[in-house]
Amino acid sequence: MSLDKAESKPHEQLAAHLADGMEAVNALIRARMTSRHAPRIPEVTAHLVEAGGKRLRPMLTLAAADLCGYEGEHHLRLAATVEFIHTATLLHDDVVDESGQRRGRPTANLLWDNKSSVLVGDYLFSRAFQLMVETENLRVLDILANASATIAEGEVLQLTAAQDLATDEDIYLAVVRGKTAALFAAACQVGGVIAGAEEARVQALYDYGDALGVAFQIADDLLDYQGQAQSTGKNVGDDFRERKLTLPVIKAVAQADPEERAFWARTIEKGQQEAGDLDHAIALLHRHGALEATRADALAWASKAKHALRALPDHPLRLMLTELADYVVARVT
Amino acid sequence: MSLDKAESKPHEQLAAHLADGMEAVNALIRARMTSRHAPRIPEVTAHLVEAGGKRLRPMLTLAAADLCGYEGEHHLRLAATVEFIHTATLLHDDVVDESGQRRGRPTANLLWDNKSSVLVGDYLFSRAFQLMVETENLRVLDILANASATIAEGEVLQLTAAQDLATDEDIYLAVVRGKTAALFAAACQVGGVIAGAEEARVQALYDYGDALGVAFQIADDLLDYQGQAQSTGKNVGDDFRERKLTLPVIKAVAQADPEERAFWARTIEKGQQEAGDLDHAIALLHRHGALEATRADALAWASKAKHALRALPDHPLRLMLTELADYVVARVT
Repeated sequence: MSLDKAESKPHEQLAAHLADGMEAVNALIRARMTSRHAPRIPEVTAHLVEAGGKRLRPMLTLAAADLCGYEGEHHLRLAATVEFIHTATLLHDDVVDESGQRRGRPTANLLWDNKSSVLVGDYLFSRAFQLMVETENLRVLDILANASATIAEGEVLQLTAAQDLATDEDIYLAVVRGKTAALFAAACQVGGVIAGAEEARVQALYDYGDALGVAFQIADDLLDYQGQAQSTGKNVGDDFRERKLTLPVIKAVAQADPEERAFWARTIEKGQQEAGDLDHAIALLHRHGALEATRADALAWASKAKHALRALPDHPLRLMLTELADYVVARVT
Repeated sequence: MSLDKAESKPHEQLAAHLADGMEAVNALIRARMTSRHAPRIPEVTAHLVEAGGKRLRPMLTLAAADLCGYEGEHHLRLAATVEFIHTATLLHDDVVDESGQRRGRPTANLLWDNKSSVLVGDYLFSRAFQLMVETENLRVLDILANASATIAEGEVLQLTAAQDLATDEDIYLAVVRGKTAALFAAACQVGGVIAGAEEARVQALYDYGDALGVAFQIADDLLDYQGQAQSTGKNVGDDFRERKLTLPVIKAVAQADPEERAFWARTIEKGQQEAGDLDHAIALLHRHGALEATRADALAWASKAKHALRALPDHPLRLMLTELADYVVARVT
């Protein structure tokens, strides 16, 4: 690798450090996403699995296991499990959101159809389930079962909360824990559990993943109002057009005067949007300092993530995880 | 119960015999389908869970455990697990099929929306996963993980196979195993496993559930061409209108002359249906004896199910399971 390490991004450093393990994980993913009977399955999954995601979640599992001195092979299965759960969630999200773009590419449900997205998602989830059972570790199964329930509950909660101006920051956090943080936290935690790490370290890994996930999602919501479609694969204003009450808007609504409140009620709750509304929304976010306050929240969560890492052994991976926490919010600072 | 036992239906006999256990299962289902954060979840699930399904699958689990002398409580969790998996599958099926009726009532995705059906299905599946982990029995988890994969694979296979005239009886059987028999088989098998039954009995329970499920699904496909909407909750010809290549049609296509083949290609593969096509389809099924041959297959599978039961102990429940196998095909004879 010719990159100056000091200049490479933390997830690239992780990828380089964990290269052998990730190669094995990718081989496992390819082997398990096939289907003897249904060729449609690898067609749909290849699209997502090869789409150039950063494989952040499986790297977290490998890193957590390595950090805790694990020398077996079950962490590879757990890493693949976590990526399958993530991919299944993306497929079901695509059905739900009817968004036209993910990672800068058309979503599976435009290339194929809703049917395939739902059922192939179910297939990947069941493959994840098989993989984790192979570890024969009941605590790991318990953690992943609970994470799955939190994910699904968060997604359902988002359905009702996303367009309701009464949604406050507590509800937002419950949604974000479900959408993002639950799987980040579980990905880290199972790495420690499979390594037989002491309880304080397992808890620290959970706390790190949870805070990293919240920071990541808040940053993502912020990017939606200030990113560039080319660099992020998102279109600026997607969340607004999809009437999602994300953190910047929640903060602006909390300070809205009656006229502003009527604007948010019309555009988000009723979904009656006109030309110029996105620009006006962004102006309101600036007027109330909502983007800056959201950025401060993202930084606070990143800081919490880094703090959790102190309970873990001194190790090059610990430094990379620390830098990763800075990096997920550096996108928006 | 005032019914003459000899005249009550086998699933009613099972329900009476297993009444205490099923009451506990129903309480568990109600407790676990709630959600602290997302009130939408019980709204959607109550519709399905209270919709008057026969609870056949959880009764199979309780019956299998009882038959094998189980005296613990984990079979209640497994019975609820199986019903949750079934309900999750129904919710995802409703999205997929866009059918307007299930069990004679509007489907969840017409009352709510596709979003809720997908995500609440995911939630129920994750709740099932939590319940089965509570049994702390790795073999049970392995069986249910494999059943989940078979179900999902069968559903995906059906997407591609259902409208392809090249679909033969082998592919049909793979679809049916996925759609129906895998969960019947697992429901029976885990009852034996949790009871610590000897391997021959566990295998017999699997074989019974598998054959019962295939018989049930073949009978269901047959009913679609000869049932009454009032009594079955299905509309005659639904499968034809939805362009599903079910067993009667597969048998008729196998014997079709070029003109008949063109008819099936137009109506099923291309989906160009006109007034009178359903009547013509039914006439073709009769011309080739396809309904009679399908009925014979259903009876043969029911017979296979009954044969498997011989490996199990003599017990009133064994007789009820025998009669159940007759009953699922009696609907069409």
